[in-house]
Amino acid sequence: MPFIVDFFYFYERGIWYTYFMDYSFSPIGKVHSCFSEKFGIPRQAGLVAEASACIELLPPYDNSDCVRELSAFTHIWVVFVFHEHINGGWRPTVRPPRLGGNKRIGVFAARSPFRPNPIGLSAVKLDRITFEKNQALLHISGVDMLDGTPVLDIKPYVPYADCLPSARGGFAKAGPDKPFQVDFSPNARSGLKKIEQNRHPRLGRLIRQLLRSDPRPAYYKTKPKKNEFGTRLFDVEVKWRVEGKNIIVTAVEQG
Amino acid sequence: MPFIVDFFYFYERGIWYTYFMDYSFSPIGKVHSCFSEKFGIPRQAGLVAEASACIELLPPYDNSDCVRELSAFTHIWVVFVFHEHINGGWRPTVRPPRLGGNKRIGVFAARSPFRPNPIGLSAVKLDRITFEKNQALLHISGVDMLDGTPVLDIKPYVPYADCLPSARGGFAKAGPDKPFQVDFSPNARSGLKKIEQNRHPRLGRLIRQLLRSDPRPAYYKTKPKKNEFGTRLFDVEVKWRVEGKNIIVTAVEQG
Repeated sequence: MPFIVDFFYFYERGIWYTYFMDYSFSPIGKVHSCFSEKFGIPRQAGLVAEASACIELLPPYDNSDCVRELSAFTHIWVVFVFHEHINGGWRPTVRPPRLGGNKRIGVFAARSPFRPNPIGLSAVKLDRITFEKNQALLHISGVDMLDGTPVLDIKPYVPYADCLPSARGGFAKAGPDKPFQVDFSPNARSGLKKIEQNRHPRLGRLIRQLLRSDPRPAYYKTKPKKNEFGTRLFDVEVKWRVEGKNIIVTAVEQG
Repeated sequence: MPFIVDFFYFYERGIWYTYFMDYSFSPIGKVHSCFSEKFGIPRQAGLVAEASACIELLPPYDNSDCVRELSAFTHIWVVFVFHEHINGGWRPTVRPPRLGGNKRIGVFAARSPFRPNPIGLSAVKLDRITFEKNQALLHISGVDMLDGTPVLDIKPYVPYADCLPSARGGFAKAGPDKPFQVDFSPNARSGLKKIEQNRHPRLGRLIRQLLRSDPRPAYYKTKPKKNEFGTRLFDVEVKWRVEGKNIIVTAVEQG
């Protein structure tokens, strides 16, 4: 049960002001995702279908009653905290990667994690619900959440209220292009094969889906001198090189 | 800038636990809506197109930079606090009105305001943005928010990520039926006419749209003895009577 304070009015120099106090929320769950670091995370939910995660509900929200009938929904909303941005501050304007990182738009016109209240919102696919020692685990895919993300709320995706086919989307009219061809070097291919056999059978698919949408921050695209990149997926280091419209994965290594 | 605490681990009786501390958020805005009380509020955003509201952004989030380019989006997400439910507690299961109020489903399978963290989420139409003394006001419609609702975040509705035509919706497959015929008594009609001329020119449309979807809580439907209801829209008292599939508005009075 969150500790909540409300608002009060105060009078200063002839004017009445409303002062809203803070609202305080306890996480109801925690995300275990393939994204072990921020670099490379897709910019919206749903872009990388292979990106899977599991939401571990925390006590006392983890019993089967809390999720009764939830599996009848194909998708859910995850309301979460951008926990690695909580001390990052915010600015009135941001530069979204979709606009090449050059144009500034208002923070409320963007989905950037650098927000006054660092609350994230993602519609993800609910693949299944399992129970371990009576603790509910929600298996989801199409995620854009960092491993360890605290979850504030889960809501069913209700198509008649949430899916608005007439909505028009400012700067982000369609999903990002997927113009990149992803190949593996012989070294990366052999590293991948070993890891796929032992631990992560669909890792190759995840890497392809993730890299073909070019998840580099926009500022790298205008600095062609740097063309080697790396990130961690699960406990695996992935390195790649950009050559024009080709991406060559150069290493896939556990550790 | 919100005050944020993180998580720590603790050890008890041979088991390591993760303790997540609370996250604290300050409202960035406040809703001024036609719904002066909870009774009668539509159960989802978008159901009553005539239901309009205005979000007043609070300092320091109220300058024009924060909403730059937002008007290019037709719809926005409003992340808000169910501020009249913050002390209401929560239960693992709820009885949604759509299921007649008899069947219990998990709190995370419902959009009920009685939640572990009373955070609301509504996709609404962004009609226009105006400025008063450099303070931004967002005019929205299709709202389901009580007057005075504190807003935690505004995000653009991004169709390619948020509109999922393939999603299937558990118990709430389609919007509610609209089987009720709404009529006004002579008394209500004359009260309405006066108020429409003076203050709220579209009030009649709002009342019709609102009542035809029968916003009574489910438990009234199985208690046919009570058939007189009332609520406040703006500063107007609206009273109605249910007779089978007809709703008769019996009074529309300012005060």
